[in-house]
Amino acid sequence: MSRLRLLVLAASTRTGSYNAALAEFAARRIAATGADVTRTTLADFPVPLYDGDLQEEQGVPAGAHELAARIGDHDGVVIVSPEYNYSMPGNLKNLIDWVSRIKPWPTTGVNGLLMSASPGPVGGHRGLIALRVPLEGIGARLHPDMFSLAAADRAFTPEGDLADSALSARLDATVEAFLHVVEATKHYRREAVAA
Amino acid sequence: MSRLRLLVLAASTRTGSYNAALAEFAARRIAATGADVTRTTLADFPVPLYDGDLQEEQGVPAGAHELAARIGDHDGVVIVSPEYNYSMPGNLKNLIDWVSRIKPWPTTGVNGLLMSASPGPVGGHRGLIALRVPLEGIGARLHPDMFSLAAADRAFTPEGDLADSALSARLDATVEAFLHVVEATKHYRREAVAA
Amino acid sequence: MSRLRLLVLAASTRTGSYNAALAEFAARRIAATGADVTRTTLADFPVPLYDGDLQEEQGVPAGAHELAARIGDHDGVVIVSPEYNYSMPGNLKNLIDWVSRIKPWPTTGVNGLLMSASPGPVGGHRGLIALRVPLEGIGARLHPDMFSLAAADRAFTPEGDLADSALSARLDATVEAFLHVVEATKHYRREAVAA
Amino acid sequence: MSRLRLLVLAASTRTGSYNAALAEFAARRIAATGADVTRTTLADFPVPLYDGDLQEEQGVPAGAHELAARIGDHDGVVIVSPEYNYSMPGNLKNLIDWVSRIKPWPTTGVNGLLMSASPGPVGGHRGLIALRVPLEGIGARLHPDMFSLAAADRAFTPEGDLADSALSARLDATVEAFLHVVEATKHYRREAVAA
Repeated sequence: MSRLRLLVLAASTRTGSYNAALAEFAARRIAATGADVTRTTLADFPVPLYDGDLQEEQGVPAGAHELAARIGDHDGVVIVSPEYNYSMPGNLKNLIDWVSRIKPWPTTGVNGLLMSASPGPVGGHRGLIALRVPLEGIGARLHPDMFSLAAADRAFTPEGDLADSALSARLDATVEAFLHVVEATKHYRREAVAA
Repeated sequence: MSRLRLLVLAASTRTGSYNAALAEFAARRIAATGADVTRTTLADFPVPLYDGDLQEEQGVPAGAHELAARIGDHDGVVIVSPEYNYSMPGNLKNLIDWVSRIKPWPTTGVNGLLMSASPGPVGGHRGLIALRVPLEGIGARLHPDMFSLAAADRAFTPEGDLADSALSARLDATVEAFLHVVEATKHYRREAVAA
Repeated sequence: MSRLRLLVLAASTRTGSYNAALAEFAARRIAATGADVTRTTLADFPVPLYDGDLQEEQGVPAGAHELAARIGDHDGVVIVSPEYNYSMPGNLKNLIDWVSRIKPWPTTGVNGLLMSASPGPVGGHRGLIALRVPLEGIGARLHPDMFSLAAADRAFTPEGDLADSALSARLDATVEAFLHVVEATKHYRREAVAA
Repeated sequence: MSRLRLLVLAASTRTGSYNAALAEFAARRIAATGADVTRTTLADFPVPLYDGDLQEEQGVPAGAHELAARIGDHDGVVIVSPEYNYSMPGNLKNLIDWVSRIKPWPTTGVNGLLMSASPGPVGGHRGLIALRVPLEGIGARLHPDMFSLAAADRAFTPEGDLADSALSARLDATVEAFLHVVEATKHYRREAVAA
C-alpha cells in the first residue's frame, strides 16, 4: 500500500492567522499517521478577481491551474478556512470560481475535509457550512464531520500544538476517519477522472 | 463480493407523488445493477412531532428506531425528497430530528444519495441543499452529485420510466458513481459503527 | 398612534425550555416598550405532519389557520426557536409548511424577528440562518439582526431575567430597532394584504 | 416628499452579461416610478482580494469606501448578481468582505432588493439565497421577495426590455413593494446610522 498524499490548504493570508496555525497543526498530525503532506496557502495560487472577459481573453489563470495540478497529485485535500460575515471568504470562493472553469473539473470525486478556527465562540462553523455548497457543486466528496476550533486565540501552545488534549484527540479522530475514506476511495476517483 | 443493499426512501406521502415516482424508477435502476433494493416511504416510519417531554416520558418512538434498523441493514441510502418553501420538508426533518436522538447515531458513516422531483423548472435542488446540513450533521457521507428532476409532471412514461433517455442516462451515471463509493467504503463504516 | 401588537412564538415544547425562557423574557421587554404582547408556543397551533392527501381530504388544519389569524391580528412576530441538527426544528418547519398552503399567504409583508437559545457556545444561530429561507420564501420581512443566546443554561436569574446586563441591553437594542421598522411599515403591509 | 434615490449594482463584469442587462432594465423600471437611479457595476468599486495584512498596512481600499459612500447617498440598493457554483460570486463576496471592515457598517438598516439572471432554468436563485447571509450579517434589510430571471438568453427584446409582459409586470410589482418599504423606513435608517 502506497503512502497517502494529502494537500493542506490554509485559506488565510494574514500573519499570525489562527487558521494557518490550525492548518500547520493538522498537517503535522496527518504526517504523524504516515501520510505525505504538502502545505499550501491561498498565496500559492494567485488569481485575479473573476472576470468573464478576462477568461475569454487570457483563459483560466495559472494560479487556478496550479491548484488543479496539486489536487491531481494528491489523494485528498484539507481546507482550513476562516469565516467572514457568517459565510465563506470571498477570496477563497473566487479561487473556487476560477478552478470551476477548468473542464473536466479537477475536483470531481476528490475527498475533502474542512476545518476552521476563530477567536470567537463559534469557531467558523457557519462559514464551513456555506463552503460545502460550491465544493460539492464541483464534485468534491466532503467528509461530513468538520473540525471548528473556537477560542483559537488561546488554543495553541508556544510549540503550535492544541493545548487541550481532548480537542487534539478529537482532531486526530476526525483525521483518522477521513483518511480511512480517502484510502478506500482513492482508486474510484482515478477511474472517475479517467472516464 | 456480496451484493450491495440499498435503502430507498421516498420522502413524500401524497398519492401520485412525483418524488415517489422518481424513487420507484431509481429503485429499479439500482436493482438493475445487481444490488438488493428495499423500497420505503415516510409512512413506513410513523413518528409524532418532536417533543422533548414526550422523549423524556416515552423515549424515541418506534418509527425512528425502525428507520435506524433499516439503515443498519443496508450499505447505503437514497432519499428522494420534495422541496417545500425553498427548503427541506418539515415532516422529513422531524423524522431526522427523532433519529438524531438515538446514540450512537445510526447514520454515522452511512453513504447517502439525494434526489428530488418537482413539476417546476428547478427540480427541488434548493431543498436538497438544505437537507444536506442536518444529514451531514449526524454523520452521513452524502454523494456530492444530486439528481433533481424538473418538469416532473411530464417526465415519466406510462410505465414509470424517465421519457428523456439523456436524463435516464444521467441518473444511471450518478447511481453508478455513488455505488462505487458505497462498495469501497462500506467496511469502513462498519468499523466506525463498531468503535 | 395606536399601540403596536406583537406576537411572540416560542418554538419549543419542552418543560424548562431555554427558548421558552428567552421568549418569556423577550415578551416582557417588548411589553415594557408599551406594546401589546401575545405569548404563544407551538402547542397552541397543533397540526399533523404534513400530508398532501390529508390536505386534499380535510384542507389546511385548524392549527395553521389559527396561527394565520394570530399573525393577522398583530403588527409583527417574534419567533424564538431552538436549533436541531444545525438547522431549524422539523416541527416548526412542518407548521410553516402547513401555513404556506393558505393563500394568499398570511405572512406576506409581515415583520419578523428571530431569536434562539442554546446551552452550547453557539446559541442556535445556524438554525436561525436556515429558518430565514422558508419564512422569507412566504413573504416575511425578517429583521437582519438576530438574538442568539449562548450558554443559556447559566444565563437567567431566578426571576427569569438575563443575568448579564450587557446581553440584556443588546436584546433591548435589537427589539427597539425592530419595533421602529414595524411601526414604520405596518400600514404598507395592510395595503399589500388588501391588494 | 423627496424623490427616492436607488443604487443599482450589477455584480457582473462580463461583456453581454445577462445580469447587467437585467440591472439596466430594472434601473429603467425604477426610474419610471419617479425615483432617482444610479447605475453601477463591480468595476466601479475596484478592490484587491481580501488580505488581513494588506488591511493592516494600507487600510480598507478606496473601492470599498466608494461603495460605502454610494450606499450612504441612496435610500436603497438593488443588487443584480449571477450565481456561481450554486452560491454567490467570490468577487462580490470579496467586495462585501472589504466593506464589512468599515465601522460602523455602512450597510446597517439599508434596504436591499436582490435580483439575478441566468440562461439556465433556475435563474440564479440559489446564489441569491447564499448572498442574503453575509448582507444580512452586516445589517442590510433585504426584501423577502427576489426576482430571478431564468432563460435570460432569450428573455430580452433588442431594446433591452423583458419580452414576456407577465415577467415584466412581476418585476414591477416586486419593485413597487420594495419601494414602499424603502419610503416607509428610510428615516429610521438615518436614526440608526446617527446613533
